[in-house]
Amino acid sequence: MSAGRRAVLLLSGGLDSSTLLFFAREAGFEVFPVAVDYGQRHRREIEAAERVCDHARCALTRLALPSLAAAFRGAALTDPAVEVPHGRYDDDSMRATVVPNRNMVLLSIAGAIAMSRGAALIAYAAHAGDHAIYPDCRPEFVSAMEKALAAAHYSPVRLFTPFLTWKKSEIVGWGAAHEVPLGLTWSCYEGGEKHCGRCGTCVERREAFLAASVSDPTEYEAGDPPA
Amino acid sequence: MSAGRRAVLLLSGGLDSSTLLFFAREAGFEVFPVAVDYGQRHRREIEAAERVCDHARCALTRLALPSLAAAFRGAALTDPAVEVPHGRYDDDSMRATVVPNRNMVLLSIAGAIAMSRGAALIAYAAHAGDHAIYPDCRPEFVSAMEKALAAAHYSPVRLFTPFLTWKKSEIVGWGAAHEVPLGLTWSCYEGGEKHCGRCGTCVERREAFLAASVSDPTEYEAGDPPA
Repeated sequence: MSAGRRAVLLLSGGLDSSTLLFFAREAGFEVFPVAVDYGQRHRREIEAAERVCDHARCALTRLALPSLAAAFRGAALTDPAVEVPHGRYDDDSMRATVVPNRNMVLLSIAGAIAMSRGAALIAYAAHAGDHAIYPDCRPEFVSAMEKALAAAHYSPVRLFTPFLTWKKSEIVGWGAAHEVPLGLTWSCYEGGEKHCGRCGTCVERREAFLAASVSDPTEYEAGDPPA
Repeated sequence: MSAGRRAVLLLSGGLDSSTLLFFAREAGFEVFPVAVDYGQRHRREIEAAERVCDHARCALTRLALPSLAAAFRGAALTDPAVEVPHGRYDDDSMRATVVPNRNMVLLSIAGAIAMSRGAALIAYAAHAGDHAIYPDCRPEFVSAMEKALAAAHYSPVRLFTPFLTWKKSEIVGWGAAHEVPLGLTWSCYEGGEKHCGRCGTCVERREAFLAASVSDPTEYEAGDPPA
């Protein structure tokens, strides 16, 4: 298979990147999923990434870089001193979950892997619902990263971001229609045994299933479904 | 001190970044040096970074990320299966020392640290002698990275690259004139007890001292000085 049909996928184990694994395959790519342990407190994500890859019969590359948490100090997802926000998935409550420059770090690492293995693409599951909260999920960031990746190497590595203009409910809808094992994915930022059901990303998850009119296979610890 | 006067420095322990520590201080910056263990075989570099920081009475942040070597597979500096090239520091012999996307990975991590700690600058010691060999030391890469860093975060982080147009001998000349402890720095890619004196980067080091008319304090294992 040519380099142009090979894609390194940043797989968090969440709904979006897990669906992207199946989407990229449908689009004809050979996909190399990579999961990075960057010291996040919701390491269940990485177990979820393993389960999704098992289901997809696809080898997962795991990179253990927990010391990155020292670089990401001060963010709720990596620093035990900072509380994970509860409530709605909106700008104010979710700002605390911004891990500074995390996505550039992860995309650079994916770029190194792509360059080493001769893949011309990095699949990145940023979606439209992230734009207001996470600057590094916006189209202008994607475009700037592509230019930096092109300047960094002799052969260009591009980003494959088909969900950039999709709502999360559209991702869930596509996944449900294409037998993506959505129940194996993990969203909760709390890192408990089950999804807490109350943190911002659990609320976002529930709302996405509701809006997509897809039955939610997730077991939540508590909380009513969003109103 | 304001964010605009704080700079995170990528310190490899080599001549260029060690001199940049002193240069940035002379320029009035509060400098936060960071050394990353990315699985390089020349870990003496990191010990050199410690010695330089001790000399400068400056705390070094060390990040242990040896698993990054898996992402950088196939490069001479991280993969034991690939030989370090000997001889002149020219395009052909040194191409094998390109670690794919290493500098973007390191700059992204420095960006995360800068954003977490409220520093507005990353000091990066790329110099003119690197341009032909390392695409990620060229001005176009620096400019593309600045745009990506600006798009990734609410507050911009810029690069401080005063050596971008300097020859290595000019860096040595500045360092010698400003009491930089050049003898404490480490260049050799072989990772032995002393500088080997023969690998491409040892040859480049020797040539820089010669061209700068600065007496070379380095102990080399073997080899005549360059003709």
